[in-house]
Amino acid sequence: MLKLYDSTLSGNAYKVRLFLALLDIEYRKIPVDLRAGENREAEFLARNPRGQIPVLEDGETVVWDSQAILLYLARRYGGEAWLPLDPAPMARVAQWLAVSENELLFGLARARAVKKFGRAFDLKACQEYGIGGLKVLDEQLENQDWLAAGRPTIADVACYPYVALAPEGEIPLGGWTNVLGWIRRVQSLPGYVGMEGIADQG
Amino acid sequence: MLKLYDSTLSGNAYKVRLFLALLDIEYRKIPVDLRAGENREAEFLARNPRGQIPVLEDGETVVWDSQAILLYLARRYGGEAWLPLDPAPMARVAQWLAVSENELLFGLARARAVKKFGRAFDLKACQEYGIGGLKVLDEQLENQDWLAAGRPTIADVACYPYVALAPEGEIPLGGWTNVLGWIRRVQSLPGYVGMEGIADQG
Repeated sequence: MLKLYDSTLSGNAYKVRLFLALLDIEYRKIPVDLRAGENREAEFLARNPRGQIPVLEDGETVVWDSQAILLYLARRYGGEAWLPLDPAPMARVAQWLAVSENELLFGLARARAVKKFGRAFDLKACQEYGIGGLKVLDEQLENQDWLAAGRPTIADVACYPYVALAPEGEIPLGGWTNVLGWIRRVQSLPGYVGMEGIADQG
Repeated sequence: MLKLYDSTLSGNAYKVRLFLALLDIEYRKIPVDLRAGENREAEFLARNPRGQIPVLEDGETVVWDSQAILLYLARRYGGEAWLPLDPAPMARVAQWLAVSENELLFGLARARAVKKFGRAFDLKACQEYGIGGLKVLDEQLENQDWLAAGRPTIADVACYPYVALAPEGEIPLGGWTNVLGWIRRVQSLPGYVGMEGIADQG
């Protein structure tokens, strides 16, 4: 059975939990105590030299980094449903993975980390950077239901968590109508699971 | 012919210039004057809503974001040479793309942006974050020539620019022996092109 090294409050780990649920794949969660520094112990660093969760183990294959895990799972278990392989559609997915790693992670998620975990980032700068990401998402979702294709892909799975968690970083979602509609669509997907801090937009 | 919306001093644009050179693909550079704000004009925003270079045009296909462009070019023109499609090797490439988007971009590249362009990031925090990335790269390159496979992949192309430019952010590379060997190997690839600020390690 797949093993996921996990932490309940991590939006990056939640990306993987959400995708495993959408793929209807059973797995075992192995909680890693970040406050106790378990992620900095030699045993964990042997799995992931960056000392971060999530890490996925699938038999002999060990994958670290949430986006790499999404790509792995999409390729291994999802056919082309969640990750098209033709150059142009694949690039469209990759564009939104990039937004997820940039404005959403270093904007929205860092703002949340300041408010929720007391991290020492510049709150205002993170909020502004994150809001720039929301703006681009909202424009993209003006005329389409999903970010990168006519169906949900790993781009939606990657972007959803820190967008839905943005209010925890004091970034309200109320004005972003298209984003809110997209959040509702994600929450309606068969198999969807939420996490603490994500409001039900149903 | 391919068109690349470009800026000479951008390490992200250089990722694409380097990969196009390695693939031996002709293209036309279209310089975008960032200081004059050309990237914020409506005509440019229609190509890339984030207002950033690089942007690639290949006939009707428009791709923004450097990593998305690398994926696009690898899929469209490189077969599986630069991007393996099997789940585990593809995930290994994606892991190093993630390091490139995280520690290298928000560490090394931001430190360089402070020193070279006067940007208002926390220099010390960026340097520390970037050095964490160099450490992980150096360990990975201890026993292998390339980051993600037995040959160069887009992982190497994505990571190389801001590593090689790190000294411009006052992050010396002298102590990172394995990284320096890898830089030499990248610089020896057929078709390699450099950019201003990258020292020849030959």
